Amino acid sequence: MTDSPFPPTVYQSFDIKTDPRKVAPRLKALRAELAAARLHGFLIPRADAHRGESVPPGEARLAYVTGFTGSAGLAFVGLKKAALFVDSRYTIQAPAETNPKLVTVVEITPATLVQKLSDFVPAGATIGYDPWLHTPAEIKDLNEKLKHGATLAPVGNLVDRIWTDRPGAPVSPVEFLGHDRAGKSSADKLAELRKMLGDDNVDAAVLTLPESICWLFNMRGRDVPNTPFVLGFAIVPRKGKPTLFLDKAKINAELKKGLKGLAAVADAKTMVAALRRLGATDKRVLLDPATCPIAIVDAIKGVSDAVIVEKRDPVLLPKARKNAVEIDGMKTAQRRDAVAMAKFLCWFDSEAPKGKLTEIEIVTALEAFRREEPTLADLSFDTIAGAGPNGASNHYRVDRKTNRTLKAGELMLVDSGGQYLSGTTDITRTLFTGKATAEQKDRFTRVLKGMIAISMARFPKGTSGAQIDVLARQFLWQDGVTYNHGTGHGVGHFLSVHEGPAGISSRYTTPLESGMILSNEPGYYQEGAYGIRTENLVLVVESPVGLGKFLEFETLTLTPIDLRLVDEKLLTEAERAWLNAYHKRVWKEIGPLLKGEVKAWLKEATRRI
Amino acid sequence: MTDSPFPPTVYQSFDIKTDPRKVAPRLKALRAELAAARLHGFLIPRADAHRGESVPPGEARLAYVTGFTGSAGLAFVGLKKAALFVDSRYTIQAPAETNPKLVTVVEITPATLVQKLSDFVPAGATIGYDPWLHTPAEIKDLNEKLKHGATLAPVGNLVDRIWTDRPGAPVSPVEFLGHDRAGKSSADKLAELRKMLGDDNVDAAVLTLPESICWLFNMRGRDVPNTPFVLGFAIVPRKGKPTLFLDKAKINAELKKGLKGLAAVADAKTMVAALRRLGATDKRVLLDPATCPIAIVDAIKGVSDAVIVEKRDPVLLPKARKNAVEIDGMKTAQRRDAVAMAKFLCWFDSEAPKGKLTEIEIVTALEAFRREEPTLADLSFDTIAGAGPNGASNHYRVDRKTNRTLKAGELMLVDSGGQYLSGTTDITRTLFTGKATAEQKDRFTRVLKGMIAISMARFPKGTSGAQIDVLARQFLWQDGVTYNHGTGHGVGHFLSVHEGPAGISSRYTTPLESGMILSNEPGYYQEGAYGIRTENLVLVVESPVGLGKFLEFETLTLTPIDLRLVDEKLLTEAERAWLNAYHKRVWKEIGPLLKGEVKAWLKEATRRI
Repeated sequence: MTDSPFPPTVYQSFDIKTDPRKVAPRLKALRAELAAARLHGFLIPRADAHRGESVPPGEARLAYVTGFTGSAGLAFVGLKKAALFVDSRYTIQAPAETNPKLVTVVEITPATLVQKLSDFVPAGATIGYDPWLHTPAEIKDLNEKLKHGATLAPVGNLVDRIWTDRPGAPVSPVEFLGHDRAGKSSADKLAELRKMLGDDNVDAAVLTLPESICWLFNMRGRDVPNTPFVLGFAIVPRKGKPTLFLDKAKINAELKKGLKGLAAVADAKTMVAALRRLGATDKRVLLDPATCPIAIVDAIKGVSDAVIVEKRDPVLLPKARKNAVEIDGMKTAQRRDAVAMAKFLCWFDSEAPKGKLTEIEIVTALEAFRREEPTLADLSFDTIAGAGPNGASNHYRVDRKTNRTLKAGELMLVDSGGQYLSGTTDITRTLFTGKATAEQKDRFTRVLKGMIAISMARFPKGTSGAQIDVLARQFLWQDGVTYNHGTGHGVGHFLSVHEGPAGISSRYTTPLESGMILSNEPGYYQEGAYGIRTENLVLVVESPVGLGKFLEFETLTLTPIDLRLVDEKLLTEAERAWLNAYHKRVWKEIGPLLKGEVKAWLKEATRRI
Repeated sequence: MTDSPFPPTVYQSFDIKTDPRKVAPRLKALRAELAAARLHGFLIPRADAHRGESVPPGEARLAYVTGFTGSAGLAFVGLKKAALFVDSRYTIQAPAETNPKLVTVVEITPATLVQKLSDFVPAGATIGYDPWLHTPAEIKDLNEKLKHGATLAPVGNLVDRIWTDRPGAPVSPVEFLGHDRAGKSSADKLAELRKMLGDDNVDAAVLTLPESICWLFNMRGRDVPNTPFVLGFAIVPRKGKPTLFLDKAKINAELKKGLKGLAAVADAKTMVAALRRLGATDKRVLLDPATCPIAIVDAIKGVSDAVIVEKRDPVLLPKARKNAVEIDGMKTAQRRDAVAMAKFLCWFDSEAPKGKLTEIEIVTALEAFRREEPTLADLSFDTIAGAGPNGASNHYRVDRKTNRTLKAGELMLVDSGGQYLSGTTDITRTLFTGKATAEQKDRFTRVLKGMIAISMARFPKGTSGAQIDVLARQFLWQDGVTYNHGTGHGVGHFLSVHEGPAGISSRYTTPLESGMILSNEPGYYQEGAYGIRTENLVLVVESPVGLGKFLEFETLTLTPIDLRLVDEKLLTEAERAWLNAYHKRVWKEIGPLLKGEVKAWLKEATRRI
């Protein structure tokens, strides 16, 4: 890093954030709390009360206790044993970050978690949990399947008792989006939500997802890295004003001004009392059992006659259907990102052949090119930059310990994105210099054919992402291989880079609708050797064919796909035509925004084949 | 029909079976029964207690009352109004068969049935139903969603009271399959079932589907047309002997001999008492809420402490995974059917150009060619033979009233199958003579490309039919059209031509497994003009690629696909190669079984393109 020509990163850090040596004293302190509370164990999830992928520092309890910094996981700390349950993405990282002698790392899937957790729970144990960090669905699952007669007990968070220097709740500036950025007023969004509540015959909805609340109130903040969230809760009654519940320190004149006429603002500490008041009047209250903390359910149920109506967060679907202004903003963001990506890829092509680039240098350069654009507010996520074998672990994040130098002939997988003020991007390209092997080209081309199949897909209204997922996988399947991740996820408008309810994989059964923006990112991973992924964002649009009954995709991402990795013999005429048309469009739309050697690079990179 | 060179049909009748003039007196008689029973209405489903597609004559209550003879539907007869609810297949046939002035025909889907039924139910009404003809799932749905405070009441069947000449339960010969036909002894099947019951921690299973019972006991009958069923119920305890409950008239020495050492046989009338005995000892009883009559659930629940465990019929999955002997039998049946199809298509090609063939003549000829094979036991279903526009209604069955002469230039859709002693077939071909239009060829070829895509598919173990369905639809979707039926259904071994639990459509989420046999039948229907469908049966087999982790399909059907309808320009090289290889195989396997002009016809029909 010392001789990098680029300014140091602002958004992404390569520091090792936790220290395995601290695991022992923290477990000891936590066990003292367990004994004092007469508990036999305590659950420590990665999630905070808002279920976001990023959590503020004071909510990073799992990392504080176990050292593990991944974006999903659950620890169980018993009086004698401790275990850390992670999915397949983290089976290498977790043992490296924790002290595996004290914390057993166990790979799980959602289906096997409780059974594997049971192995660590003594017979008849009482296990404490923080009801703000678990959903009703999770606790129901644990209560039904936990073995050996174990009992779950909602308690205060024991980790907070031992975490003496725990950071406070984040207080970041809040901005309100005008019509030029949001495209629909918060008053209109609220009116539509109230109509939905009427249709569902409920009196109020409790919102706990910051993406729903931020979208509904055309509001953005910087409470967590990578996602412009204001963390808070909201109660939206069918009649009357909604109330936003925020940390007291965040409530200021500017916030009140932005919400004037739309919503009242109250200290988050008063929410439980407000929920109780709802119950006192026999209300029907909608909440989402998949994401709402059970503490909220308990507050409503425990003391009132309110009826809880369990239903998916009603904001998710309208938010996913982007309006014309949001779409325009997302396209603007794409062009800005495409300029940065062109500069980056041009730089990479000139530097990589020297054989000295490290992953950290590559990430630093990419962030620097993105930061040349003044509307960049953050990265969408820490850039995934895996050289050679590191590319095969598909959520790899480089740090100073794992940093690897890219050797000649190795593939370089770079998955990254920017949070621009007008929208969010997410793009993956597989980089290469030198002469690719036949196998590398075969795999790259099969992945590309899958991505093109999604890009060209047409489908009747009512079709879900689950139905079309196979289009992306078919060419790899023909050769007996596949990839163990979804083909696509929803992307928010200057919000979460991963958002529901639609996506492209067998678990996304929500019909695709016009205005949704999704990623299209098949891949292939050869363990110990390399990773390949090509990702564009696509917008669902009305199809010109099919008499108004069909939809198709418009590709939003405008960055060349490396033709040196394409085995042209494997492409059909239609696929070749798609690729040429795509590159022609990239040249036409991005070429004029570039100059000098980058422009010349783009010209060559978008050549006709 | 008078001058047909073929002997008259045995299995398929073209007579009009019901008379709309009888609807009025029967409604009147039924309403008198309603009044006597102090009911405001009565439900008359098509289904019998065994949920089969075919029902014996004495169970055809829906046809008796309304005149409608379709294979699915529900009538509601109130004191003043009556309605007949049918799916989209039957919106033309139902009004033609019933008296639409007295019975309102309403198109429904499973999701809209209860709401549309509500429109006919007076406020506060008490509606009677026969608990042997409805499942717990159906009654639950009605109880939850029926409006206007209506109440459901299980009662005896009112239709049976007015049906003075109602035929008795069918009594047909029963045959037991030896190892050479079943491939696995009933004792072994029972041992595996008992193991599954142990894994599920249940003490007994109640089986109500004849296909499950027939498969489990290696037994076949002729109780209903088209499917070699013995109608009955069974209770299979985890420990001890199962009991078969059959109509008393069916119980004879031969049946007892066939079941000796395997199962006890009892009069069906004693089943409720047997279910009560199960309950008296606190047993856990498995039943399938989607198919078990609610009368059985009531019998267990009403008087006992038995715990009901609701789960899919545990026989369905093992039955769907055919063993080597069953697969061999299915292949033998395919070859026999291919011989009949070759004779039929050769005859059609010489006769159709004369422009005088009727649908009935075509069906009669096909049945005659099939009957030349002595092991033909029945047709799998009444042949669907739609000339021109009749081909567009995708479950069309010709009768003397609808019978149509095939004109030159018209497409002829023929979907048929045989029940051979060794296995069941199901095949659709679109027939044509003359010169096809560009549009006909385009549509035919897109359907064919979809069928080839399924034929060539490879997929990881764990993949469901829902995931691969789009492969069959993609080429039609590209042109903004689709078909409103599944791409494939499971096919039984000398059992139901439609069997679960796997299939190819968005509703089949059961993973495909080696040994399953499915249809592969995309289509295209232009209302008022023509229908196209091409259907082969395919067997799920282990794939040679993918290190034992992948599956693929082996095509079983061996009948040429009409090359005169193929637009070769639309085929990829891989598709053309598949088609040529398929025809080469048809010639190699079926050619030696033919002679004379049929053989010459097959040679030409399987020519290389």
